[in-house]
Amino acid sequence: MLNSIFVIVPISSVLALLFAYYFYKQMMKSPEGTEKMQTIAKHVRKGAFAYLKQQYKVVLIVFIILSAIFSFMAYVLKIQNGWVPVAFLTGGCFSALAGFFGMKAATSASARVANACRKSLNGGLKLAFRSGAVMGLVVVGLVLADISFWFLVLNHFIEEMDSGYKLMTVCSIMVTFGMGASTQALFARVGGGIFTKAADVGADLVGKVEAHIPEDDPRNPATIADNVGDNVGDVAGMGADLFESFAASILASALLGAAAYFDYGKIQLNAVLAPMLIAAVGTLLSIVGIFIVRTHEGASQKQLLRSLNTGVYFSAIFIVILSFFILKYLALPNYMGVWGSIVVGLLAGIGIGQSTEYFTSASYKPTVNIAKASKTGPATVIIAGIGTGMISTAIPIIIVTVAIILSYLFASGFQFGVETLNMGLYGIGIAAVGMLSTLGITLATDAYGPIADNAGGNAEMAGLGPEVRQRTDALDSLGNTTAATGKGFAIGSAALTALALLTSYFEEVRMMFINILDAPQTLINKVPAVEASFYDFVQHYDIHLMNPLVISGMFIGVMAVFMFAGVTMNAVGRAAQKMVDEVRRQFRTIVGIMEGKAEPDYARCVEISTKGAQKEMLVPSILALIIPVLVGFIMGVPGIAGLLIGTITSGFALAIFMANSGGAWDNAKKYVEEGNFGGKGSDSHAATVIGDTVGDPLKDTSGPSLNILIKLMVMASVVTVGIAVSYHLL
Amino acid sequence: MLNSIFVIVPISSVLALLFAYYFYKQMMKSPEGTEKMQTIAKHVRKGAFAYLKQQYKVVLIVFIILSAIFSFMAYVLKIQNGWVPVAFLTGGCFSALAGFFGMKAATSASARVANACRKSLNGGLKLAFRSGAVMGLVVVGLVLADISFWFLVLNHFIEEMDSGYKLMTVCSIMVTFGMGASTQALFARVGGGIFTKAADVGADLVGKVEAHIPEDDPRNPATIADNVGDNVGDVAGMGADLFESFAASILASALLGAAAYFDYGKIQLNAVLAPMLIAAVGTLLSIVGIFIVRTHEGASQKQLLRSLNTGVYFSAIFIVILSFFILKYLALPNYMGVWGSIVVGLLAGIGIGQSTEYFTSASYKPTVNIAKASKTGPATVIIAGIGTGMISTAIPIIIVTVAIILSYLFASGFQFGVETLNMGLYGIGIAAVGMLSTLGITLATDAYGPIADNAGGNAEMAGLGPEVRQRTDALDSLGNTTAATGKGFAIGSAALTALALLTSYFEEVRMMFINILDAPQTLINKVPAVEASFYDFVQHYDIHLMNPLVISGMFIGVMAVFMFAGVTMNAVGRAAQKMVDEVRRQFRTIVGIMEGKAEPDYARCVEISTKGAQKEMLVPSILALIIPVLVGFIMGVPGIAGLLIGTITSGFALAIFMANSGGAWDNAKKYVEEGNFGGKGSDSHAATVIGDTVGDPLKDTSGPSLNILIKLMVMASVVTVGIAVSYHLL
Repeated sequence: MLNSIFVIVPISSVLALLFAYYFYKQMMKSPEGTEKMQTIAKHVRKGAFAYLKQQYKVVLIVFIILSAIFSFMAYVLKIQNGWVPVAFLTGGCFSALAGFFGMKAATSASARVANACRKSLNGGLKLAFRSGAVMGLVVVGLVLADISFWFLVLNHFIEEMDSGYKLMTVCSIMVTFGMGASTQALFARVGGGIFTKAADVGADLVGKVEAHIPEDDPRNPATIADNVGDNVGDVAGMGADLFESFAASILASALLGAAAYFDYGKIQLNAVLAPMLIAAVGTLLSIVGIFIVRTHEGASQKQLLRSLNTGVYFSAIFIVILSFFILKYLALPNYMGVWGSIVVGLLAGIGIGQSTEYFTSASYKPTVNIAKASKTGPATVIIAGIGTGMISTAIPIIIVTVAIILSYLFASGFQFGVETLNMGLYGIGIAAVGMLSTLGITLATDAYGPIADNAGGNAEMAGLGPEVRQRTDALDSLGNTTAATGKGFAIGSAALTALALLTSYFEEVRMMFINILDAPQTLINKVPAVEASFYDFVQHYDIHLMNPLVISGMFIGVMAVFMFAGVTMNAVGRAAQKMVDEVRRQFRTIVGIMEGKAEPDYARCVEISTKGAQKEMLVPSILALIIPVLVGFIMGVPGIAGLLIGTITSGFALAIFMANSGGAWDNAKKYVEEGNFGGKGSDSHAATVIGDTVGDPLKDTSGPSLNILIKLMVMASVVTVGIAVSYHLL
Repeated sequence: MLNSIFVIVPISSVLALLFAYYFYKQMMKSPEGTEKMQTIAKHVRKGAFAYLKQQYKVVLIVFIILSAIFSFMAYVLKIQNGWVPVAFLTGGCFSALAGFFGMKAATSASARVANACRKSLNGGLKLAFRSGAVMGLVVVGLVLADISFWFLVLNHFIEEMDSGYKLMTVCSIMVTFGMGASTQALFARVGGGIFTKAADVGADLVGKVEAHIPEDDPRNPATIADNVGDNVGDVAGMGADLFESFAASILASALLGAAAYFDYGKIQLNAVLAPMLIAAVGTLLSIVGIFIVRTHEGASQKQLLRSLNTGVYFSAIFIVILSFFILKYLALPNYMGVWGSIVVGLLAGIGIGQSTEYFTSASYKPTVNIAKASKTGPATVIIAGIGTGMISTAIPIIIVTVAIILSYLFASGFQFGVETLNMGLYGIGIAAVGMLSTLGITLATDAYGPIADNAGGNAEMAGLGPEVRQRTDALDSLGNTTAATGKGFAIGSAALTALALLTSYFEEVRMMFINILDAPQTLINKVPAVEASFYDFVQHYDIHLMNPLVISGMFIGVMAVFMFAGVTMNAVGRAAQKMVDEVRRQFRTIVGIMEGKAEPDYARCVEISTKGAQKEMLVPSILALIIPVLVGFIMGVPGIAGLLIGTITSGFALAIFMANSGGAWDNAKKYVEEGNFGGKGSDSHAATVIGDTVGDPLKDTSGPSLNILIKLMVMASVVTVGIAVSYHLL
């Protein structure tokens, strides 16, 4: 039954993976520098993989438990499809694989980039960017592989049904696969986030503040752990996060498409294929875009940035053009409107990135004002940072709001109301796909940042000349600019994806609802979904805003967000505390450490961060998994409906507040270090260093983890929908 | 048509005001101490009233503008009742009057309390508490007066209609009067909050941190402003806040009662009277409770606390008992259930207070852990405080959630579903009334805190002996304990009141809806509200959770909360900055100031805080007023529905986070000052002082202002409901 154009999806997947392999091989060919550089890189690599191994062990146990629970739901309670427990695992495995390969590339690249920077800035940029591209392409390649595989398998095995039910069934099963990716992403983000910030805060507090030695100084025992942290937190964590968004936005849109074009015969399949094809073509464009990023020797930093942007913009502009033709070819009746939704999604991503840039870069007023507040000490720096971070939520929220309404209106033919509801919701899903379609290259520019950062660390520890460090700093600062855009995409896509997932949740409930009313033995019966009155459904579940269960659910959703953020903050605090104690102990007991005559025990610090992260990531992760199940069990569908929308809206705001406050504090510190308000060593500097340290867990642990939380809570609700529908107390 | 038992309401009002006058006169009789003490008190009084005058000027202008707008809506657009613009003013006037009298009592009391403390702790307690009682009784007395007056007037003037429509109309007009109180409360809280924290932060940063002089030192030019701030922020601000909650919870419950018992003939009036009578009887019990607070000479601090609690518990227990008989007398068919809702409300208030106490008192682990984090510097103190504050939202939210569901279930006869929806919502409103019924005495214990604080300031500045300061400190620390409970009530009642108002909003829309369907010329027609299918209404306005306008509205609601909090934070930062500059200037230019030979220019600092507060309070206040109108105009009823629920849920969480983080930092500092982790003057102490300073605007400006925001946004939506219904774009 499949349309032959679907073949583009597996082809893109294979091409993405092949080019990732090619870039990896190319990077591995370039020399790793002096023996000392190699040793340091080996330390970092060893630490990173030791951590990854430990984390994957924990994740494996969690996956076995969850699979058992889903099997129980599927085969004993019969409230979930039998494919789910098996396929849930593939999402997790593929996400873990992407993390593994991405880390392998990143940890192998750092010394090589540092070495390339000994010769030229340009060589360093190219190498760092191509190594980041490995991560970007592995992520999109594996997502498309997973989707291709299961779409083919399920289409083959799920038996034919009347009208559009087969595709509805296939897509509704596929959405639940995202749960695997979500769960793995949560552990990657939370565990990695705690690891990296425990090491960073610990290294800074004792090294910089107490012992007055510079960052990345080899005498600091926590410095290797700090560099390991950049890899496990920023590279693997960000990769798993976007793996999940990319997969979920495509799968949720496919289900919404199957529902929206239910009565459209063959067109239904085309609507399901649309998000997959757009993602596939976006991936091909990303590969081309990556090749476009070239610079000539002696390029200025501005030219370097322009070169990076050329690649990104090329992919973005061409996906806008090509997606028009894709949709036209697929003959969706409202293809112009759906195309509009894609454009809206892309623009929203760019807009959120711009606003992040405005609120966190020292080129603009907000961050300068935070730096200025350092004249009256650390307290006013913190107050200004919190205030500015909170205000900075306004523009992204307005952008998302406008994007939701516009993408809905475009796809629904400028109508609100029940008749076109599914079309409109499809538009919201497709907007998320549009935003993420060129993920291959945007993630490459993102992963490039920590690689450059690590290269700097390597150069510092290996004692390379100041001109090398200067070059890696230039790469790093370039990375910060592209990272702002990257973060915008990560947060914005999390919100839109979560909304698309939320509407898929309602779709799943609705399918169960029709089933409950008519034929309790099969998952799907013959009553067309669109004909079962929409308000019968709303009425049956009372998912309106006067229902106290909906309101209570919302309160709990907001609570989940605040609690999760608070628990991860405190986790970093505790883990950092242990690191501080260890670093102090080594400074005290290892003779000759401060003179550089004795080597610190780097491995012990890595171990402490690893153990701390493993221990501390359990509570928040269990919270995220158990709250939706409990709320579903106690309060049923209206409770879950409230819970999810409360989580998404407040989680989005809190994530932006945390990311932007942290980013602004970071750059305010750098602004002072550039010589403003007294420069390095002044009281102002000390005040901004405190701000930066406070911002660390906000921007790199709690904030990004919220991206996952809002998607995972919806996912967990989707997968356990049977509990809320069939086994609720109230 | 009125039931004669209604007479209890005006009688309680008059009695409350008489006793307030009596306590005021009694307090004025006691001597004000030395000439220096009198001068200082005069300075503070003058500053406070100068500020109040300035603020009321601004508020007056705002009221004139708003009245004009409401008149336009009522007489030109015909989308609001003609009584609203006039009566809107009385809510504001009465609230302003309550603030005026409360401040008069508080500012007159401080020197007298300090003087009483020269003799005994016990005398000081009694005087401070009775002065706080003036505020408590004036607030409840004026609310009951306002309600009595308008209920009588409207019942007289609104023409008789068939069935229960007359009471629906009367109550729906009365709810909108709360708008006046809300608006005045916003300015009182935001303006007062900015004033007090600008002065406090400014005084501390230069005085304590830079010049190393103690708190309340007369050499510090900002010290009078700091004391003025306690009055305008904590006394007048808290009073206006609870004035509004008390009025709105009664009025919203009355409307919900009129709707729920629409078909019950005479019982409808009784359901409307129930919240008024419970509030009135609670007021009488508060007066008795205040008289019960007596201690013998030489009582220990524990005994003092027990004495205060005896009064509070007496009122609470007796309102539980008496409200049972009131409801039985009123013969509500489900009076047992409604009584259950009242008990739930009271218990919820106490529970939230207990959890505040747990998370902010140094007797428990969370605050001690924050203090412990000072061993690694200010950054970890801040991280721990933010983390703990966020986690601390969990218990209050669970309490509110359980309270919502239980009070709903009790009143609805343990049923969800449309048939009993209005009964259940009435239960939620009544729970808020229950929580606030003994406000007379709880507010007295609350207002007593800043009075004791000011007495300490007076003693310090007047150079009284250390034993006096010790006694005022004991009073102050007692005040902190009662303030925790008070804050719990303020936040908890804000959430429940806002929810009751939200459901009244839907009630108003529903009344317009019936009208729109049937008879466009009269506000209310003859179709019984309960007979017009509930889902016709839900369907007409699409207020379900899949509507993108509802979702977008929610995002904007969350945004409003974060933005408002951020703007007020930054406002404090900016105003404090100006204060710092001024204090530094005086230290630099006034010769002999540090030797105590020259008097600082206190008035200039008061002026700076006043101007700063007036200037800075405008943007957040306008935000709060304009967002609901704009959202209603653009997105109509579904947008507003989402907006309000988003604001209430996230505003509640953020308010608790801010209040508890701030409170915990404050007490962590005190804990270190008591000699832990190095004690006064240690690095740990410096770290906790920074935490405390960060916490100041969180707990005393932004946090409490959010209480008002969530109520005002609902109020503004209720009053401008006609715009969302008749003039929306989407």
